[in-house]
Amino acid sequence: MTWDGRHMLDVEGRTAEEIARILSLATEFRVDEGRASFADGTLRGSNVALLFAESSTRTRLSFELAARKLGAETFLLEPLSSSMVKGETFVDTVRNLDAIGFDFLVVRHHRSGAPWVATRFFSGHVINAGDGWHAHPTQALLDLFTLTRELGDVRGRKVAIVGDVLHSRVARSNVSTLTQAGAEVWLCGPGQWLRGLESLPVTLTTELDAALEDADAVMGLRVQKERMAPGVSIGEYVDRFQISESRLARSAPRARYLHPGPINEGVEVTREVARGPRSMVLEQARNGVPLRMAVLALLKGSGPALNQPPTARSSYVGTRG
Amino acid sequence: MTWDGRHMLDVEGRTAEEIARILSLATEFRVDEGRASFADGTLRGSNVALLFAESSTRTRLSFELAARKLGAETFLLEPLSSSMVKGETFVDTVRNLDAIGFDFLVVRHHRSGAPWVATRFFSGHVINAGDGWHAHPTQALLDLFTLTRELGDVRGRKVAIVGDVLHSRVARSNVSTLTQAGAEVWLCGPGQWLRGLESLPVTLTTELDAALEDADAVMGLRVQKERMAPGVSIGEYVDRFQISESRLARSAPRARYLHPGPINEGVEVTREVARGPRSMVLEQARNGVPLRMAVLALLKGSGPALNQPPTARSSYVGTRG
Amino acid sequence: MTWDGRHMLDVEGRTAEEIARILSLATEFRVDEGRASFADGTLRGSNVALLFAESSTRTRLSFELAARKLGAETFLLEPLSSSMVKGETFVDTVRNLDAIGFDFLVVRHHRSGAPWVATRFFSGHVINAGDGWHAHPTQALLDLFTLTRELGDVRGRKVAIVGDVLHSRVARSNVSTLTQAGAEVWLCGPGQWLRGLESLPVTLTTELDAALEDADAVMGLRVQKERMAPGVSIGEYVDRFQISESRLARSAPRARYLHPGPINEGVEVTREVARGPRSMVLEQARNGVPLRMAVLALLKGSGPALNQPPTARSSYVGTRG
Repeated sequence: MTWDGRHMLDVEGRTAEEIARILSLATEFRVDEGRASFADGTLRGSNVALLFAESSTRTRLSFELAARKLGAETFLLEPLSSSMVKGETFVDTVRNLDAIGFDFLVVRHHRSGAPWVATRFFSGHVINAGDGWHAHPTQALLDLFTLTRELGDVRGRKVAIVGDVLHSRVARSNVSTLTQAGAEVWLCGPGQWLRGLESLPVTLTTELDAALEDADAVMGLRVQKERMAPGVSIGEYVDRFQISESRLARSAPRARYLHPGPINEGVEVTREVARGPRSMVLEQARNGVPLRMAVLALLKGSGPALNQPPTARSSYVGTRG
Repeated sequence: MTWDGRHMLDVEGRTAEEIARILSLATEFRVDEGRASFADGTLRGSNVALLFAESSTRTRLSFELAARKLGAETFLLEPLSSSMVKGETFVDTVRNLDAIGFDFLVVRHHRSGAPWVATRFFSGHVINAGDGWHAHPTQALLDLFTLTRELGDVRGRKVAIVGDVLHSRVARSNVSTLTQAGAEVWLCGPGQWLRGLESLPVTLTTELDAALEDADAVMGLRVQKERMAPGVSIGEYVDRFQISESRLARSAPRARYLHPGPINEGVEVTREVARGPRSMVLEQARNGVPLRMAVLALLKGSGPALNQPPTARSSYVGTRG
Repeated sequence: MTWDGRHMLDVEGRTAEEIARILSLATEFRVDEGRASFADGTLRGSNVALLFAESSTRTRLSFELAARKLGAETFLLEPLSSSMVKGETFVDTVRNLDAIGFDFLVVRHHRSGAPWVATRFFSGHVINAGDGWHAHPTQALLDLFTLTRELGDVRGRKVAIVGDVLHSRVARSNVSTLTQAGAEVWLCGPGQWLRGLESLPVTLTTELDAALEDADAVMGLRVQKERMAPGVSIGEYVDRFQISESRLARSAPRARYLHPGPINEGVEVTREVARGPRSMVLEQARNGVPLRMAVLALLKGSGPALNQPPTARSSYVGTRG
């Protein structure tokens, strides 16, 4: 079990085979409760720092649980409880986390590119848990995992992503995995939120009905009142883009609804859909743990960071037995 | 070792036998340092989420330590570090914690009834760690545990609960356990704080001396400046209701003083009493850990949540070996 | 492996032999990755409470990682998530942590002397992780550890400590360890920050060039804009006391630069020095973990707290197997 590359920064650039391997391992962690390797503690003796400059419940807990299920120790840094409040730079924080001796660094940051910067100063494995408007690779992978479990191969399936796709790292990463997997992706929202996306191998539309027509899956995105498109009120957004059962009548009969959470019920989606039989929202949360276990386990087995000769740095990164 | 019911929401409705079983197991955890079962890790492989929408030191740490002494992993959610700040509803948070795969949910919440709501969306075990003005079952159990260790059977013993009993979940839960155990309970405080309590099987009084007369134990409650009874100043409260050595002269010679903490020394009680030989305050903190270990272990052994067929949910709730 | 004294409060009063023992054990933890005792879990079954009334990244994580590498469980208390916000006194918090049953208490507090107060109410081991302007013993020990690894014996070596030495617990503790180890210590900064230090066995100077002349090591201290010396502006401080490559031309050819962090680059030191080949800043972070492992392990083996007869308190402090 090896993995090319020490880090999980983005899904862009990953081959279909690499992604298939992650999903395959996630499937093992998902279904195989009693298997010996589960309890083996693939990550025993590993220390995982979670640097969440943006707060998060589900992503943080999902990573924490995934790491501990593999036997690792987790260490949480949040903005309010750290030197970040003293104005230490992100780079200095990362350099120190490296020196202190953590093996994994899971980073969520409001600045796009922060995890890439981290790799220049962290000799262990870096995982992007969401950076700015840019990427959220483990979310896109668990979304693909969820869709694959529900629909089988997504090749030729129509997936509509609806909302502020321009500013959504979830949308951006999902476009990458879904188009690579052969899905037909539609992006839908107010025109201002589609601008500049013309080069993507997707269909853009401001008409929700067109996006939903025969769709096999609809992905909602969180709409934030403080970041509406210019000239579009919340009321107008709800009128034109809210996903409801009646709007979904145009989609495929068993079309699934996905959302990365947290949901603004009554804004981007009705409560009826969000909690109804189409909703994959909790299934996504459920799949997040085995998916992240797979990512952690694959990176751990990837070699470079672990097979390095016992230098000064690694000399006190022992195992806990 | 089985336990009826998956959850620990309240002490009301628990039979005397059930409560005796908790106290009996707590006694084992309290005194038996070296026993094998202690190190067995009754909860090994269990993941305990602590959702503290109200902050707390002693209750949170007591649960964390109890869970880890049994071999569980603990995961903390506090208001400032979670989606709660993004306005996610309590129900959505609970649904996600269930999906992510936690086995236990320990809830403290400012809204009465929150843990009951949680049980509708959480398939594991829910423990109420204090909800609004309503109930705080593990506190009442550890108080009964403490009194029993000190006084033996509390049947026929007089216990005075003094302060804002109307708004106290600690008082409410203690009335339940103490009256069931056969103690003679007196509630004492300004008249406004006794209103509506007439139906309880207790004696109500606004006269502290009457409440303390021959009392075997006195339970103080935290008095909050920002929540005084209308028309009662702090100064007046101190004059009429503060527990001091001189007021305690009327109580039984070795009457114990209990308080759930944190104490406002000099308000509801003098420093002399709070730190004196009558004070059980630290003994309560000490008893909190084995009592909560007993609750966790009994729920774990209760079956329903664990013996459920391996559904999708439980499929990745493996053990850590 | 025993250690005199249950606590690590200060480096003052420690003999040269005691300090040598800490450094010797830290060296074992630093270099010996695969040794059996490392995985033995010297602290398995121990519960370590980290009470950080002042927030900190590197010191807190360093202690957490050190404790867990030895097999202990760690429990974090920070001001925002505790009864401290309800106005509970420090003493009451410590008394409760003792009663709940923690074995170690690592304290950082803005009030000088807080860890000493803690020892009066905590029956386990207390470690000072920085108190007010007073002491930061593990920082001074890791600084000495770092210098010794770099320079060999520091006897006769010149070490210049530059900045607000008056208000620095790091400076104070370093003066103690360095002078005891036979180093020639110079303290340098604006005159207001040297006042009252005349009795120390060091050389005081307001002239940076004199301090740096032939120095083998320079220790920087964080300069805080909100706590400048009266009559000294940041600009003036930079002009007179900033450590730069050109100023360091006077020091020994391979003079090392140390700083406890977090650094204000461009204020007390240039970026060129802070990140250059002289900088020991990350080496200090790296050495913090094995040094703190040594302190924890030595205290654990020190006897008094552990060899006490199994009283009520210790009766439920079992091992986790």
